[in-house]
Amino acid sequence: MKLKIINPNTTQSMTDKIGACARAVAGSDTRIVAVSPRMGPASIESHYDEALSVPGILEEVSLGEQDHVDGYVIACFGDPGLYAARELARGPIIGIAEAAMHAASMLGTGFSVVTTLARTCNIAWHLAERYGMERFCRNVRASDLPVLDLEKPGSDARRIIADECRRALAEDRSDCIVLGCAGMTDLCEEIGDALDVPVIDGVASAVKMAEALVSLRLATSKRGDFARPLPKAYSGLLADYALK
Amino acid sequence: MKLKIINPNTTQSMTDKIGACARAVAGSDTRIVAVSPRMGPASIESHYDEALSVPGILEEVSLGEQDHVDGYVIACFGDPGLYAARELARGPIIGIAEAAMHAASMLGTGFSVVTTLARTCNIAWHLAERYGMERFCRNVRASDLPVLDLEKPGSDARRIIADECRRALAEDRSDCIVLGCAGMTDLCEEIGDALDVPVIDGVASAVKMAEALVSLRLATSKRGDFARPLPKAYSGLLADYALK
Amino acid sequence: MKLKIINPNTTQSMTDKIGACARAVAGSDTRIVAVSPRMGPASIESHYDEALSVPGILEEVSLGEQDHVDGYVIACFGDPGLYAARELARGPIIGIAEAAMHAASMLGTGFSVVTTLARTCNIAWHLAERYGMERFCRNVRASDLPVLDLEKPGSDARRIIADECRRALAEDRSDCIVLGCAGMTDLCEEIGDALDVPVIDGVASAVKMAEALVSLRLATSKRGDFARPLPKAYSGLLADYALK
Amino acid sequence: MKLKIINPNTTQSMTDKIGACARAVAGSDTRIVAVSPRMGPASIESHYDEALSVPGILEEVSLGEQDHVDGYVIACFGDPGLYAARELARGPIIGIAEAAMHAASMLGTGFSVVTTLARTCNIAWHLAERYGMERFCRNVRASDLPVLDLEKPGSDARRIIADECRRALAEDRSDCIVLGCAGMTDLCEEIGDALDVPVIDGVASAVKMAEALVSLRLATSKRGDFARPLPKAYSGLLADYALK
Amino acid sequence: MKLKIINPNTTQSMTDKIGACARAVAGSDTRIVAVSPRMGPASIESHYDEALSVPGILEEVSLGEQDHVDGYVIACFGDPGLYAARELARGPIIGIAEAAMHAASMLGTGFSVVTTLARTCNIAWHLAERYGMERFCRNVRASDLPVLDLEKPGSDARRIIADECRRALAEDRSDCIVLGCAGMTDLCEEIGDALDVPVIDGVASAVKMAEALVSLRLATSKRGDFARPLPKAYSGLLADYALK
Amino acid sequence: MKLKIINPNTTQSMTDKIGACARAVAGSDTRIVAVSPRMGPASIESHYDEALSVPGILEEVSLGEQDHVDGYVIACFGDPGLYAARELARGPIIGIAEAAMHAASMLGTGFSVVTTLARTCNIAWHLAERYGMERFCRNVRASDLPVLDLEKPGSDARRIIADECRRALAEDRSDCIVLGCAGMTDLCEEIGDALDVPVIDGVASAVKMAEALVSLRLATSKRGDFARPLPKAYSGLLADYALK
Repeated sequence: MKLKIINPNTTQSMTDKIGACARAVAGSDTRIVAVSPRMGPASIESHYDEALSVPGILEEVSLGEQDHVDGYVIACFGDPGLYAARELARGPIIGIAEAAMHAASMLGTGFSVVTTLARTCNIAWHLAERYGMERFCRNVRASDLPVLDLEKPGSDARRIIADECRRALAEDRSDCIVLGCAGMTDLCEEIGDALDVPVIDGVASAVKMAEALVSLRLATSKRGDFARPLPKAYSGLLADYALK
Repeated sequence: MKLKIINPNTTQSMTDKIGACARAVAGSDTRIVAVSPRMGPASIESHYDEALSVPGILEEVSLGEQDHVDGYVIACFGDPGLYAARELARGPIIGIAEAAMHAASMLGTGFSVVTTLARTCNIAWHLAERYGMERFCRNVRASDLPVLDLEKPGSDARRIIADECRRALAEDRSDCIVLGCAGMTDLCEEIGDALDVPVIDGVASAVKMAEALVSLRLATSKRGDFARPLPKAYSGLLADYALK
Repeated sequence: MKLKIINPNTTQSMTDKIGACARAVAGSDTRIVAVSPRMGPASIESHYDEALSVPGILEEVSLGEQDHVDGYVIACFGDPGLYAARELARGPIIGIAEAAMHAASMLGTGFSVVTTLARTCNIAWHLAERYGMERFCRNVRASDLPVLDLEKPGSDARRIIADECRRALAEDRSDCIVLGCAGMTDLCEEIGDALDVPVIDGVASAVKMAEALVSLRLATSKRGDFARPLPKAYSGLLADYALK
Repeated sequence: MKLKIINPNTTQSMTDKIGACARAVAGSDTRIVAVSPRMGPASIESHYDEALSVPGILEEVSLGEQDHVDGYVIACFGDPGLYAARELARGPIIGIAEAAMHAASMLGTGFSVVTTLARTCNIAWHLAERYGMERFCRNVRASDLPVLDLEKPGSDARRIIADECRRALAEDRSDCIVLGCAGMTDLCEEIGDALDVPVIDGVASAVKMAEALVSLRLATSKRGDFARPLPKAYSGLLADYALK
Repeated sequence: MKLKIINPNTTQSMTDKIGACARAVAGSDTRIVAVSPRMGPASIESHYDEALSVPGILEEVSLGEQDHVDGYVIACFGDPGLYAARELARGPIIGIAEAAMHAASMLGTGFSVVTTLARTCNIAWHLAERYGMERFCRNVRASDLPVLDLEKPGSDARRIIADECRRALAEDRSDCIVLGCAGMTDLCEEIGDALDVPVIDGVASAVKMAEALVSLRLATSKRGDFARPLPKAYSGLLADYALK
Repeated sequence: MKLKIINPNTTQSMTDKIGACARAVAGSDTRIVAVSPRMGPASIESHYDEALSVPGILEEVSLGEQDHVDGYVIACFGDPGLYAARELARGPIIGIAEAAMHAASMLGTGFSVVTTLARTCNIAWHLAERYGMERFCRNVRASDLPVLDLEKPGSDARRIIADECRRALAEDRSDCIVLGCAGMTDLCEEIGDALDVPVIDGVASAVKMAEALVSLRLATSKRGDFARPLPKAYSGLLADYALK
């Protein structure tokens, strides 16, 4: 099967890292295509960035449909544009926050999310609510690291995040950790080994969830909200988004 | 004060109608500016349309900030881009679903929303939840009218909507009606007179809420999530969205 | 339009202050009438006080109806008797907790209430739940000031409340403050200026909400629960409350 | 022990019936005192009636305290004034809706309430929520009988209510019935025998709950909200309500 | 009436203590039978122990039905097997967590549970949710005492639990204490006297609730989920559990 | 990897069918072991059956641990004993209701469960709540088929279930179907093809979820509630359940 992993920001080093982590967990008959959109923000750290990442994501899903992609992963912890993308895709399309939270709920009694900037914590809380995972989400903790610091070789990011995970276990009554940024995908194993609790990376989780659904021949329902959008005129910069 | 009413779709007749209704209820010292964005969908009837209306909305808010606008209304019942827009705006910025639902909750014990296509009902339910209005929202009912039918002179839209409102009162245990589309703004008074219950139009409600907040000198909080987004690179079609 | 502001306690200095603050924010064509009931408690600091303030409030609403009042504000943060009063009133009738919480929910992501005695905190929590505002209410904090201390010239009240507001912002993950007592109405501007977040006074908010609804010709729904009560015999001290 | 049963309306025939039913279930060492207040509405069928029944209830509780009453029942299905009354009482004080809903939740998986007028249904829903019983409350059904019709010899009330109970079982997925008016206390056994499911009368349930708590020496907590109200001035008609 | 108190663990000293406390609060015409099952764990401190206590409980209920028992109490704070037991019993059957939480909700505005090991806290939270008592449950606190330490004469258990109750009142905004283990039944009075708030023991509460329901002739509903299980084959160790 | 699928009832034909369906979807490097416990009910159609299936399940998990099983599936739609089993297992252990509901929540906006007897519907509702899936669960519908009818060649079961699924789509506003019994595992593809919406079988879903978690090296958290139970004495029939 072919899975397309869309990193919604335009930072290629992060896309490369995400692609590598996806390939490392994918099944032997899964082909991973990891892309950044052609437009949009270099990192996603606000509602504004998130909203403006969506046109690029939707373009990549449209291209994926032409390219017979079987399933998709949206690899940003805010799961931007997930519902709009589901309207375009035939196969399943999974957000990394969605996948990680679901996985955590099957492994323990409550998880803490450790993410980047404090201003994104509410976004994670909203997603937890939307997915029904609020009852398992004991806390969302900011490490106060900007997203792109995770891309800097030699930065302190690794230590800072591991320390925040430790505080989460000590203070939140949680027994699993969810890493709250696609850029942390390469830290998962190391931190998991250090903490001796499940540490869950959304990229890897979403790849496996998408594989599972595709192999079960389960696709996005086209009966209700996620039916293909009605054709209509689009204008201006976005004229090419008109569907037929 | 100056209020900017953003109709997120690009259909000018609808923008004109919305502007006229806004002016009809605005205070004598309020100047109403009603616009459609320069890009985006002709109508909003899916998550896809909604997501792609947001770049145009955000551009209009940025222009509004340069133009010393005091408050904003997003005049589409899905309240697209509301949180992203709040990050840009200094003053208050109100969604029409938000305003209408809040108003209804102060006038009765439960309301029914009467909207256009069935596929948009879940969007209204999500908003009701997000605003805390789920406990007042007794039902969201589709009239199965496409949005732009509301713009066609001589269409049956008026009758169809009034009939659905009547069914709502008979079947939903509700005592208020919320009209679930900005394009219904001109139907409010007529249907209200016919039904003898509060019939609430989001455009008018949002104008008055925005006026109220501006006159109280209450603005969007810049302490938390709605602080101005961090400056960063944007690329491709959306390069101009980079903030400084 | 004529708005009647009912301070449910019998302390005239507080009624005067509330009236002045209401007039300061009211529109130029709004006439504010501020009253205390003819009977009841000197301040409201318990369920008992609250329950016993209601007969006086209802009398004032009945008088208001005879006097062609267009809308009402109940100016005590427990919103006593709100639903009973809605059964009597034709126009809208707004509680100050209701108005302040709704306003806060449109300006930020979460608010703290700063109120007087600890024993009233649960009342505020109940109202937050009733209005659907629990999801925005991050905390209700007592300043441990008795209500009438707010009326004493030269008291420390101003400083104590400002300090509690500061603690709220530091500890509650909130980005707006709601002042939890009508007697704090004159502190709003000063504290808001000091804290640089929206500080919301219920009296002012409720006046503007009531004005907004009246100007939209939206009135309390008379279809359901808020229909006029059935006529029946009343006896004893309350015999005059019998409706016809 | 001495239990005081307060029928919050002033209709003596109903108080007599309630007293008789309470005595029929009370333990051999329980003395039942059943009273109507000296003031207030002849029946309670609105928020207005309910609010105005509270001063009379509070007077009866104050008198009860002087009279060494051990526990109280408020015998109206809206449980009017329950929290205010708890501030006055040393012993436990139970509402009949509270008792009936709690009992039903221990006997089945979901109950239907069958009450009088449709306009009181929301009151029952609010109580179900307040007591945590919303998850067990499958429906609240009006029989459209005015309260005092239950007092008329030869009325159809008995048949109408039994029929509504039958519809509840057939349509609501419920397995218990809660009778939603103190005036139905004498119908409980007959309807229960006919329907072969638990049919729960709040008056009887509350008497047994109060007995249980008194015999366990459990009283209303005086640590928090239900501490005795602060002394303060009361004026006008209600001047005698000032506590010392 | 005859009430059967089932201590789900096999520790006889604890069964004896529970029986004595039950008898101390029972009415004069109530006969208390207190038993341990013939099989199962010596104490219940995990989901595993809890699950494996259920066959023994169900055997005791089956024996009780042959023996014309009128009502049952399951005397372990996890209320193990409550719903399965209700399918077997004609009369009411009450869990001690259920009874204690309901009682607490009628005496104050919020309670803290003080229990044994931390790993059982989530069980108490789940029960609070299941019974609708989550809104009253302010905290569940572990004392870190193994259950059987409560049986050791001269242990520090008494002091440790009282101290945890004190911390609960100081830190949890609660005004009642629920003792979270049947083995604490004999500590209730002493701690209650020391703390001057209601301290609620589930064993005593459940005995009185069961007495109340039996005396009202209210039994487990046999209409829905709690109907007698269908007859079917059982095999292996559990062959004798086949119903006819 | 080795996955053990535990059919909690003792009906071998059903175990064989479940094993075959599990093998059909398992990855090429997954070894499926499908078993029935040595003791317990022939089918599970009540809380009683469910409770009594748990000892057999726990024995199979203990044996599995000795046998180096990597992950488990509990193949009964009530997910009996899931939390107790998690205390025993090192690897992940997934219930089929859990897996199916999670999968459905990623494919559509709302699902209907179609199950066997009406008396089991509440069990499914409780699980939906426990897993956070209540917000996606639009209805739980009984087909009124006893479980073992699904095992009878030539029975009408197939048609009856397909018809109920059709009604679900027509009446419940749902866009996915969850089959609510492990015995329906072989109907999934046929019904899915007929209805053109995702029809989700828990057995297949749980196999893929378990495979996903095992391949990600994610195991049940042993930090909190799911830590191995404390060693203690067990007696009677269950003496062998004592852990060391």
